[in-house]
Amino acid sequence: MNSFGRIFRLSIFGESHGEAVGILIDGCPAGLTLEAGDFLNDLERRKGGIQKGTTPRKEDDIPFFKSGIFHGRTTGAPIGIFFENKNTRSEDYEKLRAVPRPGHADFVAHQKFGGFEDYRGGGHFSGRLTVCLVAAGVIAKKLLQLASPVNPIIVSAEIVEIGGEKDTEKGLQKAIDAKDSVGGIVECRVSHLPSGLGEPFFDSVESNLAHAALAIPAVRGIEFGTGFAAARMFGSEHNDAIETLEGKTRTNHAGGVVGGITNGNELVFRIAIKPTSSTPKEQETLNWETGKQELFSVKGRHDLCIALRVPVILESIAAIVLADLLCVEQRIPRVIHS
Amino acid sequence: MNSFGRIFRLSIFGESHGEAVGILIDGCPAGLTLEAGDFLNDLERRKGGIQKGTTPRKEDDIPFFKSGIFHGRTTGAPIGIFFENKNTRSEDYEKLRAVPRPGHADFVAHQKFGGFEDYRGGGHFSGRLTVCLVAAGVIAKKLLQLASPVNPIIVSAEIVEIGGEKDTEKGLQKAIDAKDSVGGIVECRVSHLPSGLGEPFFDSVESNLAHAALAIPAVRGIEFGTGFAAARMFGSEHNDAIETLEGKTRTNHAGGVVGGITNGNELVFRIAIKPTSSTPKEQETLNWETGKQELFSVKGRHDLCIALRVPVILESIAAIVLADLLCVEQRIPRVIHS
Amino acid sequence: MNSFGRIFRLSIFGESHGEAVGILIDGCPAGLTLEAGDFLNDLERRKGGIQKGTTPRKEDDIPFFKSGIFHGRTTGAPIGIFFENKNTRSEDYEKLRAVPRPGHADFVAHQKFGGFEDYRGGGHFSGRLTVCLVAAGVIAKKLLQLASPVNPIIVSAEIVEIGGEKDTEKGLQKAIDAKDSVGGIVECRVSHLPSGLGEPFFDSVESNLAHAALAIPAVRGIEFGTGFAAARMFGSEHNDAIETLEGKTRTNHAGGVVGGITNGNELVFRIAIKPTSSTPKEQETLNWETGKQELFSVKGRHDLCIALRVPVILESIAAIVLADLLCVEQRIPRVIHS
Amino acid sequence: MNSFGRIFRLSIFGESHGEAVGILIDGCPAGLTLEAGDFLNDLERRKGGIQKGTTPRKEDDIPFFKSGIFHGRTTGAPIGIFFENKNTRSEDYEKLRAVPRPGHADFVAHQKFGGFEDYRGGGHFSGRLTVCLVAAGVIAKKLLQLASPVNPIIVSAEIVEIGGEKDTEKGLQKAIDAKDSVGGIVECRVSHLPSGLGEPFFDSVESNLAHAALAIPAVRGIEFGTGFAAARMFGSEHNDAIETLEGKTRTNHAGGVVGGITNGNELVFRIAIKPTSSTPKEQETLNWETGKQELFSVKGRHDLCIALRVPVILESIAAIVLADLLCVEQRIPRVIHS
Repeated sequence: MNSFGRIFRLSIFGESHGEAVGILIDGCPAGLTLEAGDFLNDLERRKGGIQKGTTPRKEDDIPFFKSGIFHGRTTGAPIGIFFENKNTRSEDYEKLRAVPRPGHADFVAHQKFGGFEDYRGGGHFSGRLTVCLVAAGVIAKKLLQLASPVNPIIVSAEIVEIGGEKDTEKGLQKAIDAKDSVGGIVECRVSHLPSGLGEPFFDSVESNLAHAALAIPAVRGIEFGTGFAAARMFGSEHNDAIETLEGKTRTNHAGGVVGGITNGNELVFRIAIKPTSSTPKEQETLNWETGKQELFSVKGRHDLCIALRVPVILESIAAIVLADLLCVEQRIPRVIHS
Repeated sequence: MNSFGRIFRLSIFGESHGEAVGILIDGCPAGLTLEAGDFLNDLERRKGGIQKGTTPRKEDDIPFFKSGIFHGRTTGAPIGIFFENKNTRSEDYEKLRAVPRPGHADFVAHQKFGGFEDYRGGGHFSGRLTVCLVAAGVIAKKLLQLASPVNPIIVSAEIVEIGGEKDTEKGLQKAIDAKDSVGGIVECRVSHLPSGLGEPFFDSVESNLAHAALAIPAVRGIEFGTGFAAARMFGSEHNDAIETLEGKTRTNHAGGVVGGITNGNELVFRIAIKPTSSTPKEQETLNWETGKQELFSVKGRHDLCIALRVPVILESIAAIVLADLLCVEQRIPRVIHS
Repeated sequence: MNSFGRIFRLSIFGESHGEAVGILIDGCPAGLTLEAGDFLNDLERRKGGIQKGTTPRKEDDIPFFKSGIFHGRTTGAPIGIFFENKNTRSEDYEKLRAVPRPGHADFVAHQKFGGFEDYRGGGHFSGRLTVCLVAAGVIAKKLLQLASPVNPIIVSAEIVEIGGEKDTEKGLQKAIDAKDSVGGIVECRVSHLPSGLGEPFFDSVESNLAHAALAIPAVRGIEFGTGFAAARMFGSEHNDAIETLEGKTRTNHAGGVVGGITNGNELVFRIAIKPTSSTPKEQETLNWETGKQELFSVKGRHDLCIALRVPVILESIAAIVLADLLCVEQRIPRVIHS
Repeated sequence: MNSFGRIFRLSIFGESHGEAVGILIDGCPAGLTLEAGDFLNDLERRKGGIQKGTTPRKEDDIPFFKSGIFHGRTTGAPIGIFFENKNTRSEDYEKLRAVPRPGHADFVAHQKFGGFEDYRGGGHFSGRLTVCLVAAGVIAKKLLQLASPVNPIIVSAEIVEIGGEKDTEKGLQKAIDAKDSVGGIVECRVSHLPSGLGEPFFDSVESNLAHAALAIPAVRGIEFGTGFAAARMFGSEHNDAIETLEGKTRTNHAGGVVGGITNGNELVFRIAIKPTSSTPKEQETLNWETGKQELFSVKGRHDLCIALRVPVILESIAAIVLADLLCVEQRIPRVIHS
């Protein structure tokens, strides 16, 4: 299923080199003001070709509203948003048909879909589809504003490490020097989130966020609060002492989630992004037709460090998950009159 | 929702100090042989009181089959399994009502459920409910056998680190010496898994496994293959060269999943377990009634290192997720005649 | 899937001659007062052996609360309710194993589940499981009270026809005289329901109610408002003129639902119940073992007119569906403090 | 939720006078051949303007494939299909803004979505969206062929009654003479369906078909087999005697479903369609602005008997539901190589 969410529910579709990619958003409250301008900033942040180390493929990334919006507001009906694919160079991929690119979904897609998959540029598996997540994230962020008007919920993500370097410029430069791609770590923080979101067990906040975050291509792990480092701590160090009746804790090792439920402290989580599979370095792989290993080098246009484009995607994922949980908890009305 | 799965679908219920905890399993194929004896080994592995560092609370953990099993085989109808709670000491908890235990769900449960939650021993949030996951895991493991009879799928998890020590005995001893609880890391490996399981984006194998694994109490993170370390690598190092037409790769940094889909190599993932919240050390917390901080020390009976009991739970989670994905891919028949 | 609902969500399990039947209710708000006494009246209405024309099988139908209730209120955790099966006579069924009873699920269960089904008394297909629906209905009805405290929502169903007779006594007597079973029609009305429940298309009120109502064994059709008779009307006759700003209509041919959404008028729908499959009359059927037709006559204990027991079940179904839709529309709070 | 299905899953979107209507189909097997030509016949059958008594609004109804299809076959990724709206006359509706049309969703949409709904031509509630159901039905019908290649499953629906007349020409003429709209009854039959589809209780075949059929605008009821007439029968009349080991029954009062499961006999069900709400007759309704009743007469372009266009839609619904159930039962492979 390419769908996610219980009340605020998304379905994504499209292929990297098809006509378009798009997203369908069901369950969005009616009355939310929405215009193309709302999307510009976040879509721009996701784009390649601007930051050093990102793909030179440039797409306009103009959101086309196909349904669910009328007179500048959501109608309560499903919202369809499209992004046309223009800057495609499918011929680059046709040549590579016999060579599954290492680290990419080429091989598994072929196994799973029997060779019928659209293999051009990764097809439906492409990071191109994350533009849809960002679009949904823009709407979700607007919903979050409504949940807590006085003390607005703020979702903010940033790269905290590239290639093992906390000085991310330095990490990126290492990759440029090595003529290789490189991975990174992105951290997301959400402040002013109410307590009580999520459910015990299968609908825990961590389960939901992890589910959605690991849907982002190239993500290899997620941790909450102190995360993996918590496994190396004693209980007396890790436990966060509650200081106020509102639940403010002295430390925040829990990253704002205890027992699967938000506790009113800042939500903090991090994801690990693998190095871009398309590295400029020559690599060995199998040729399906010859059945032999061969040297292979990526042409196409690719990111050196895909993590650079992930912060806005991770913010979107966080906003999407939290908007849905806030809807379930009735913190966002079904009709918005403001 | 306390439910999970698309075809092989679970719902759990119960409280630590209520009458029973249980699990309902819908969508299990008919004809699977099942008897209490199948459950003994895994239930025993989860138990406290046997290994050093685990809780002295002892429960029989006898599975009572309430429905869906007839003449020693599954019928195709929902399977209800119960575990009675006998060895409860609720009075330990009544006294603590005014003091939300640090690191536990007491505070968030109170916030979310308005004070109506069953607070005894963590109530519905308790690790006690993981006995239900293990029961479901036993059934799921049996289903996995059917998916690949010649080369049986093997799910196996172990603790790979306690308190930062790869020598886990040493890590545990540190905690015993410090009179403190301690965290750990558990790794799960699944061999002989077919390629092609999972979907791109929201139903990726990682999304599903992370969703379920982060439903286990005390889990703070999950990583696949090389995981967080991948974020520190170059692409040419991380990419796994495909060597055979079946997809066998030279290295397995991907941990058996690419593009959200299994690639036929060993599935490898790890989870981080925080130190048991109930530490023998005295801690500060808030008294809800007085509104003041006070010193607090856990009585009850608790694990020093809850991670010690997690391997069989993580195996269960893995088996549950994979059984469901194998059902979707029609690798497990709806009726089992063997 | 033996589950239903989006927020207020049910799963049922159990077999007619197994140890117990039960229901798991997830997503019920916390704080709802609930005691065994709340269930007595509706459980009594469903029972056989009291009304003429109903089965002499008598069960205590005492609800055992297994989880989700604490100190007389719901906790917000899943509510498990059990009913023990005591008055079973499985030996009646063992003898019939080779003869699939006409009109019953014996044949299809055997086809679907490969012979592994629990065939005693219809097993999981038995009307016995409707006791679980009634229990969930009791809770749902209590929730409905909260949605509209001033003008409480009232759900009420009654038999409007037996064996084609609007004088139901007469219809039943016809069956008694004919020594045959007989069908009937049950009508449900819900007053004071707010407008705006349901969604266009797949989550229409009619879709939801029909889905749930056709899950009741023996139901063969459902119609809303004027229903099938509407197919024989002109538009000018059928259209309900809106008379007030609140949406009150002069007539109510629509039965309170337009475009899949409640319109604030009385909700009216009817279901058709087939004659009890177990008729006292001798019938012909196939013997699986001999492969030959044979005469067959039901022993066991059965209802002459199962429709007599359906009104409270239909009310329950209506209340369950509407409670869920009211939760989605945020008309019922997540925590109840009254 | 504007979604339906478990494996073969649909989501619809769009508005009558918006840019387009469309459907997203997730979970369709890979490798199914698909081209625009496959859709022509069924789309033509749904169209207005051809048959007497149908709307003169003419749309090209050309399916635009936006995703999930590559080289003439499905890829396994979500299939997006669009239909542009061209022949719209929104100005007809702008004038009527203050007058909720009787029988239409204008009033409830306004109540539910707070006035933010797209009210032009019924917006998202419009029968226009049924073109999407027909498109999905075409794909579903192709899948049904694969489930039973030797004895292909045939889905066929027809009008069996207009305005109470079994001679449908006569019923339609009555409406033309009366200058009024009129309702009708549509019957669907599915032959060569395997036994064993559906689940007891909430996922019964009837529950699924009713759920989907009642999502079609203007449907007011559904009945299976003998349906409402069964409520007037004795058990000995209604029960279908099983004659063969394959389950062939002498009569088919059950309409091919017993206990919620298909029994291998012909599936038969009927739906009641109300008269088109837009009748040429003058009607009374409320003016929201003046708060007064006023006479109102429909301009726009409308069907006199919407039931005339329903058979192909009902076939589509049946095929969609059955394709999903066949996928669950593993009767349709995940990859199609033929």
